[in-house]
Amino acid sequence: MKKIITISREFGAGGGEIGRKLAQALKYNYYDKEIILKTAKDSNVDVESLLKWDERVPMNFGFAQSLFDFYNKPLSEKLFEAQKQVIRKIGEKGNCVIVGRNANTILKEFDYGLHVFIYADPCWRAERMKDKMPDATEAKINEEIRAIDRTRKKYCSYYTNTEFGVADYYDICLNTSSLGIDACVEILEKLAK
Amino acid sequence: MKKIITISREFGAGGGEIGRKLAQALKYNYYDKEIILKTAKDSNVDVESLLKWDERVPMNFGFAQSLFDFYNKPLSEKLFEAQKQVIRKIGEKGNCVIVGRNANTILKEFDYGLHVFIYADPCWRAERMKDKMPDATEAKINEEIRAIDRTRKKYCSYYTNTEFGVADYYDICLNTSSLGIDACVEILEKLAK
Repeated sequence: MKKIITISREFGAGGGEIGRKLAQALKYNYYDKEIILKTAKDSNVDVESLLKWDERVPMNFGFAQSLFDFYNKPLSEKLFEAQKQVIRKIGEKGNCVIVGRNANTILKEFDYGLHVFIYADPCWRAERMKDKMPDATEAKINEEIRAIDRTRKKYCSYYTNTEFGVADYYDICLNTSSLGIDACVEILEKLAK
Repeated sequence: MKKIITISREFGAGGGEIGRKLAQALKYNYYDKEIILKTAKDSNVDVESLLKWDERVPMNFGFAQSLFDFYNKPLSEKLFEAQKQVIRKIGEKGNCVIVGRNANTILKEFDYGLHVFIYADPCWRAERMKDKMPDATEAKINEEIRAIDRTRKKYCSYYTNTEFGVADYYDICLNTSSLGIDACVEILEKLAK
């Protein structure tokens, strides 16, 4: 029985929907943005700055990196540390589905983990996001997909020293545009049990 | 129903075993090295040179690349073209499981394909290869794994312009060291049907 399921996902690929359905099927707790709020509460970082920094790599992470001072880290570093602690607590409790936040690498040492990557063809993702963002133009959606993909990739390599979307870092990778969301939920439910 | 199943795999991860079991379960034809022999027969390339070039990128593929002459391609280019034609013929017939040979990219335009990547933790692969190569030392096995991984990566990016082991190029990626070989066969059998 897998007690901890982490889902990393491309924007618009259905990772959130799969996570919620899976949590429901397994009677597990579901976590995503809630973690951020919980982090804020635990670490006294104010929520507004926190959401602003969410999944963004500090602008100056190239050159200025070497000047970092442990006692004077930029906010997003503090945020990452705070989130990490929250995610570890959630992992210790178990029976959880965690979407995003690089939880796979943070919880990789835990037993009973199943680490999933959800991805899909960009056109399929754009089509899917149209239903969710009916007011956005197609160009706007495509731009958003590219921008968020890029940000997640940077965030992932900056904080975890792993590569987003490279199979090695997950137990299973599922392409929702070829397999369908429900088939993916079914596969994962079976694997978890 | 998926008519064409391609399996790309890391050395020692069990892709061949999964392919054979899957072909048996689905009553499909199984192809791996046979393709090479068939290629040889079809294209009048002699088998010895063929096996020597198998999955190897021409040594001079950096600088000399620009000097290639369409009418005077090195043997491995000819081999890739010949293999490609054979794989396309096998794909057209359908009801097949093809292991290796970058068949996923060669057959990506075909309908009813399921493109799989099989990978595993390097230690697990070394352990598994020990049973299959009882006379080899552990160091030799580890060296072999690294060398073959490297060769397959080069072969893949050289001939197909895709990246080996990056989820995007497959429908599903399965880690045999965490999921087990039989669970992988079961998932794929169900997806194929």
